[in-house]
Amino acid sequence: MKTKLYGIGVGPGDPEYLTLKAKRIMNSVDVLICPSKSEDAESFAYEIVKPNMENKDVEVLKMIFPMHYKTHDLKKKWAENGKVISDLLSQGKTCGFITLGDPTVYSTFIYTLPYIDDAVMDLELIPGITSFCAVASEIKQPLMVWEESLKVMPVRKNSKDHLIQAVGEHDNLVLMKPSSDTQAIVEAIRHHGLENNFMLISKVGTEGSHMIRDIEVLENTKLPYLSTMIIKKGGFRD
Amino acid sequence: MKTKLYGIGVGPGDPEYLTLKAKRIMNSVDVLICPSKSEDAESFAYEIVKPNMENKDVEVLKMIFPMHYKTHDLKKKWAENGKVISDLLSQGKTCGFITLGDPTVYSTFIYTLPYIDDAVMDLELIPGITSFCAVASEIKQPLMVWEESLKVMPVRKNSKDHLIQAVGEHDNLVLMKPSSDTQAIVEAIRHHGLENNFMLISKVGTEGSHMIRDIEVLENTKLPYLSTMIIKKGGFRD
Repeated sequence: MKTKLYGIGVGPGDPEYLTLKAKRIMNSVDVLICPSKSEDAESFAYEIVKPNMENKDVEVLKMIFPMHYKTHDLKKKWAENGKVISDLLSQGKTCGFITLGDPTVYSTFIYTLPYIDDAVMDLELIPGITSFCAVASEIKQPLMVWEESLKVMPVRKNSKDHLIQAVGEHDNLVLMKPSSDTQAIVEAIRHHGLENNFMLISKVGTEGSHMIRDIEVLENTKLPYLSTMIIKKGGFRD
Repeated sequence: MKTKLYGIGVGPGDPEYLTLKAKRIMNSVDVLICPSKSEDAESFAYEIVKPNMENKDVEVLKMIFPMHYKTHDLKKKWAENGKVISDLLSQGKTCGFITLGDPTVYSTFIYTLPYIDDAVMDLELIPGITSFCAVASEIKQPLMVWEESLKVMPVRKNSKDHLIQAVGEHDNLVLMKPSSDTQAIVEAIRHHGLENNFMLISKVGTEGSHMIRDIEVLENTKLPYLSTMIIKKGGFRD
């Protein structure tokens, strides 16, 4: 028999960016799975939903998803986690897996899904606010208008040439994980003379939220992992 | 003195995709501005929020934003609407402007903003669930994983060559407003042999929601305006 597994997007940080559906479902499941990067760390996804956890019967289960593992160990850990979730589902327990942002956008949940036994899983995904939409709202700028398009891409290590090309090609560009190679981003922006056409926000929607729009500040800042940059070739509105 | 104007994203259709913040703010303003395409039509954005309108003191103001006007008339109408909003703000009334999806993604609100007097406006944007995130959740597919990127673009009229290029270039492509030139999309998909690599959903999150993943059905269907297509070169997960 299949039991329900929900992949629940909780948005990028502000507890109020939770959807009504996410709030309802997370308070209705038997087990709420909360990814965390280590034993010692709080689950950031759980911190986001905590103010809206009203049902004390929900079992809150912290699950470790290391971020900087060697690939082999990471896959082993995912397989272990997938087994735990499959077992819970086999026991007839409905499970919610909370995940930062939206479950279909580079989410921990999507990476875990292949390790969960299809035979015991009736899957439902609940969309969430993406970091890039939250950042655009925070800076009061459109992501795209009229006939414009938007490109969203992750920054890789050693990606200078790739970034120079991408910054040149797209009217509106969102860079995820800019901490992977901040120097390459700085060089790509300078290459195209777009020093006044970027904004970056770290930890959007949280008390630690921080904006950078000065290229020299960007160059000299060690960015947090949860940072998002928007580059608009046409510039920002006043 | 400046009064607060909120641009409130209400998501693509499901009332439960409203955020907690959107719900709180729309119940706290003096006037809730609800865009509608004609005098006769209901405001779709208002239909989405209606189940969560709890404060009867909020004045609900339908505002007409015609979709198929000649450009000149459209701008004239926007200017008129902007004047109405500026006047409300000048009177010290806080206003919420509800808009489909997210306010920074091709939204009616963003197009109206230049016509509102900055001198009377203290602006705040509240992000919403985008149609493409809702569609990806509905079809239980990732928009992007790992090093992949995502391109989001609107379909224009007579855009066959443009679409053939875009479909060829991007791993993950979201086409907004596919009703603008469905035949060109069909040809671009066939050109690249990607007949099994697209899914389209119309009116996601509503009772009229409808999925198409057969190229011949796509070719012979007159799509609603509110349709979104995802094309994944690497294919969909089982």
